[in-house]
Amino acid sequence: MNPNPSPEIPLLRGPVPLSHLLLRQFVHPGDRAVDATCGNGSDTLLLAELVGPTGRVWAFDIQSDAIGQTAQRLAQAGYAGQAECILAGHETMAERVTPGVSAVIFNLGYLPGGDRAIITHPETTLAAFEQALILLKPGGILVVTVYPGHEGGDHEGAVVDAWAAAHDPRAFHTWRMGQVNVPPSAPYLTLIQKVA
Amino acid sequence: MNPNPSPEIPLLRGPVPLSHLLLRQFVHPGDRAVDATCGNGSDTLLLAELVGPTGRVWAFDIQSDAIGQTAQRLAQAGYAGQAECILAGHETMAERVTPGVSAVIFNLGYLPGGDRAIITHPETTLAAFEQALILLKPGGILVVTVYPGHEGGDHEGAVVDAWAAAHDPRAFHTWRMGQVNVPPSAPYLTLIQKVA
Repeated sequence: MNPNPSPEIPLLRGPVPLSHLLLRQFVHPGDRAVDATCGNGSDTLLLAELVGPTGRVWAFDIQSDAIGQTAQRLAQAGYAGQAECILAGHETMAERVTPGVSAVIFNLGYLPGGDRAIITHPETTLAAFEQALILLKPGGILVVTVYPGHEGGDHEGAVVDAWAAAHDPRAFHTWRMGQVNVPPSAPYLTLIQKVA
Repeated sequence: MNPNPSPEIPLLRGPVPLSHLLLRQFVHPGDRAVDATCGNGSDTLLLAELVGPTGRVWAFDIQSDAIGQTAQRLAQAGYAGQAECILAGHETMAERVTPGVSAVIFNLGYLPGGDRAIITHPETTLAAFEQALILLKPGGILVVTVYPGHEGGDHEGAVVDAWAAAHDPRAFHTWRMGQVNVPPSAPYLTLIQKVA
């Protein structure tokens, strides 16, 4: 008598399924959350599903294609009422998001299928990270997928790593989660949890 | 109207809460699982809770104190019927465990509060890891907490890292999950998921 005979087993092929597994543990109905780089909208969609009709998601992107695609996917899924798509850089997050969010997610690098010249930059990225840590509630998480493989990505990764390692362990639990049997250019996850 | 107003938020202070978070996603009622180093029994207890009365847990340790303590905790929690405590090295796992397990967990190093001269050794550890990978079902996970801080622990960690990195990425998703704002001697998690 197995009450749950075939639960979905997540396959941890790369950082995306791992980040989604983590978001599912930390974002709950009624919560607020931020997708700092909405891209094709798949993280926004998951966050909107998790916060539900009583929650709120803010999704940022500097490319109108990304905002349009995300808004369309949210509408199709019936989540339009609980998510806001904002055509602006994530470094404006603090002006727009209500503090006390459960999670903020970033995908660094360029928009998949988009213009590869439009990439995230360490200066604005770090500014947005700092804002994200302030906006998080205690126990909340900042989840960053770092792509060292594109041009400038290795430098961006090094900047993110140094920033993450510099935090007081009494205030933030800071993790690096990477696959070890893949090339060094493969993406990895940086996870920061606010303690209090 | 929040259906789940105060869900428990796991605090990711070190590998233990992270390993428990992962086990909760991969071990379900009716499953089988292995605690390869039962120690004080806390991982065994979690696995027994997760597999439930229709599942099965095998718990190994070479120290009778550990086996006794684990059996007592299982009995107190009402899980005695679904877990077996085995006073034997985990390198005998293949002889005792039915294949198709969802998870195998190892805590390397010494028994907390026990004799620090009794530690895990790379040779038997790797032999048991190999058996664990064969016993896992597709999608199943091997979770290893590595403690580089004790004497011999840094060597053991290097052996585990090299072994983990050597696996074919088509067959195993292999991860290293470590905190970055702690000393290098701090424990970290090695996670290996069997693809098929």
